[in-house]
Amino acid sequence: MSGVLLKPTPLTKDNFARFGDVIEIDGAERLLINEGTTERFHALARIDVSKNGGTPILSIFRARARPAPIKLAMMERHPLGSQAFFPLRNASWLVVVSAAAIPAPDNLEAFIARGDQGVQYSRNVWHHPLLVIEPVQDFIVADREGAGENLEEAWFTGEPAFLAAP
Amino acid sequence: MSGVLLKPTPLTKDNFARFGDVIEIDGAERLLINEGTTERFHALARIDVSKNGGTPILSIFRARARPAPIKLAMMERHPLGSQAFFPLRNASWLVVVSAAAIPAPDNLEAFIARGDQGVQYSRNVWHHPLLVIEPVQDFIVADREGAGENLEEAWFTGEPAFLAAP
Repeated sequence: MSGVLLKPTPLTKDNFARFGDVIEIDGAERLLINEGTTERFHALARIDVSKNGGTPILSIFRARARPAPIKLAMMERHPLGSQAFFPLRNASWLVVVSAAAIPAPDNLEAFIARGDQGVQYSRNVWHHPLLVIEPVQDFIVADREGAGENLEEAWFTGEPAFLAAP
Repeated sequence: MSGVLLKPTPLTKDNFARFGDVIEIDGAERLLINEGTTERFHALARIDVSKNGGTPILSIFRARARPAPIKLAMMERHPLGSQAFFPLRNASWLVVVSAAAIPAPDNLEAFIARGDQGVQYSRNVWHHPLLVIEPVQDFIVADREGAGENLEEAWFTGEPAFLAAP
């Protein structure tokens, strides 16, 4: 096996700030509502899908683990909208992004998200499709429905990247 | 204890159709994506918050159980936007709605939602604030941020309603 080996580091608001939002309770604005029975951790992400008349939608993604070590051969981005993922069961998962204009194995960043952390990729941020650690993991996803081409893929030339076991 | 006693029935797309969306995998449009590793259960709810320039946001609600039997003294609705709830851990929860113009103990409907079912209340649908069964339950919530008064409350006059144990 040859190619870049990426070691995921723990996801934080700070290290993900260039790429979008970390959706988590820690550090959030907290409002007490519903006669004091509910805490609202407010506006953890603002959904940005109105470009070209887009509509925000909720979907569920059921992701299956890829064979280890996970091979990364491409990245994708959504020019017309943000895309948010939040895990529906409390299990860690993996996030791979790139801040480069053209993503490649040597400019990727990998993070481990806890089971109580979601992310929202900002519009046009290169990211790898959903990567999980357990055999099957479900996520709720907020993204865009509407006219226009909202998916761009970049397949790597040459050696792929691999993710080190978290 | 006097007042109407409501018995919750299992939540289904059919019995909730007048009030909004049931967010669940059963019966959803299913797309295979990400090189076959992910099933996308597509567009389970369309978020409707653009009225008066509203923006869709994601928050987390942490709800605590109320003393049994749960007493219902009021309902609320959001004239400017839909509001979606999805449980973050797999535990059942409770949904109370009314199709009447003025909600009252004798025109409420109560449902038990499974831990893998969310709901989206349509704009202007009377519903009770979040009700849970476990001591503490977290939900991801998609609703509206923006100008305008988006909360209307209706407090019952006379006897309250009570929820029978599910």
